[in-house]
Amino acid sequence: MKLAILVFDRFTDLDVFLPWDLLNRVARFRLLPDWEVKLVGTSAHHTSENGLTIPMSAGLDYLGEADAVLIESGPGVQTLLRDEAILARLHSLLDPGRQLIGSICSGALLLAKLGLLDGLTATTYPTRVKQLAAMGIEVVEAPLVAHERIATAAGCLAAVDLSRWFLEGLASKEVAEQVMASVRPNGM
Amino acid sequence: MKLAILVFDRFTDLDVFLPWDLLNRVARFRLLPDWEVKLVGTSAHHTSENGLTIPMSAGLDYLGEADAVLIESGPGVQTLLRDEAILARLHSLLDPGRQLIGSICSGALLLAKLGLLDGLTATTYPTRVKQLAAMGIEVVEAPLVAHERIATAAGCLAAVDLSRWFLEGLASKEVAEQVMASVRPNGM
Repeated sequence: MKLAILVFDRFTDLDVFLPWDLLNRVARFRLLPDWEVKLVGTSAHHTSENGLTIPMSAGLDYLGEADAVLIESGPGVQTLLRDEAILARLHSLLDPGRQLIGSICSGALLLAKLGLLDGLTATTYPTRVKQLAAMGIEVVEAPLVAHERIATAAGCLAAVDLSRWFLEGLASKEVAEQVMASVRPNGM
Repeated sequence: MKLAILVFDRFTDLDVFLPWDLLNRVARFRLLPDWEVKLVGTSAHHTSENGLTIPMSAGLDYLGEADAVLIESGPGVQTLLRDEAILARLHSLLDPGRQLIGSICSGALLLAKLGLLDGLTATTYPTRVKQLAAMGIEVVEAPLVAHERIATAAGCLAAVDLSRWFLEGLASKEVAEQVMASVRPNGM
């Protein structure tokens, strides 16, 4: 399985790193063979909202090979929403008929812009609800709103629920539970 | 306030990045002035257990100026436990009479090695309980074990509880609640 996490400048640290670690655990614990998670960006490095610069592991083309795509969040989403060239590339690379596609927080705005939420309910970060609703999407106040191959999550820690959704869809409930058990607070 | 997060090679991604984002939010949301969080390491970059290489923002000396120190976890802890030179530097830089000091998961082993858990109960990652107990520490199965200026947390997502403990101790319950509200899953 190939998993892509779409990152850009001014990304929200937690929203990238929570799924990054949870999704990588499938390979790290050797729960399944042939499992890779790549950070995908428009340049070799991107810098987070907290000023941390990290290297990408693939360019945008990897989105076309991926079995699952996670669209990240943060103030940088607003820049992408106005970038017609990147929007056109994302539109040509993403395939909602084959891929699992999910967003966290303001990443839902990008999914909406690409037409991927047409006719679906979705969730987004509380400060972005009006913007998403203005794009014609019915916004639901929930941690995770999952449809067949599209899910939106909101409130940074809901990245845990979104990661579980990806793990259950790409692997199994058992694999998802093994990953979640490995991060559960002690004694809980 | 100066907060230091001690990082090393083969760190656990989530255990670093969860507190990194939560603790940085105090400055990002301008909740308090003069608030800085630095990633402190023994070299300019360190690579996580999932293979992500990140830049440090300060060297070990920053631990001596810090008001709070968070000791990270991961397989790399075992290397530090055998590095007498680094242990001696940590011992000279950390000041439990003045600083808030906390650990996540296997970071507790380093606190124990430095004598900072003498006479205290502590928690650690389930697979490290025997090792911590063998160092003479009474291990408690709980997400967070907090004493006056020393806290240990275990199970990666307990990094949220540990971050709250730092925020309440260095800032206030109100500031901690504002940070936690900003990451709470939508509708929860």
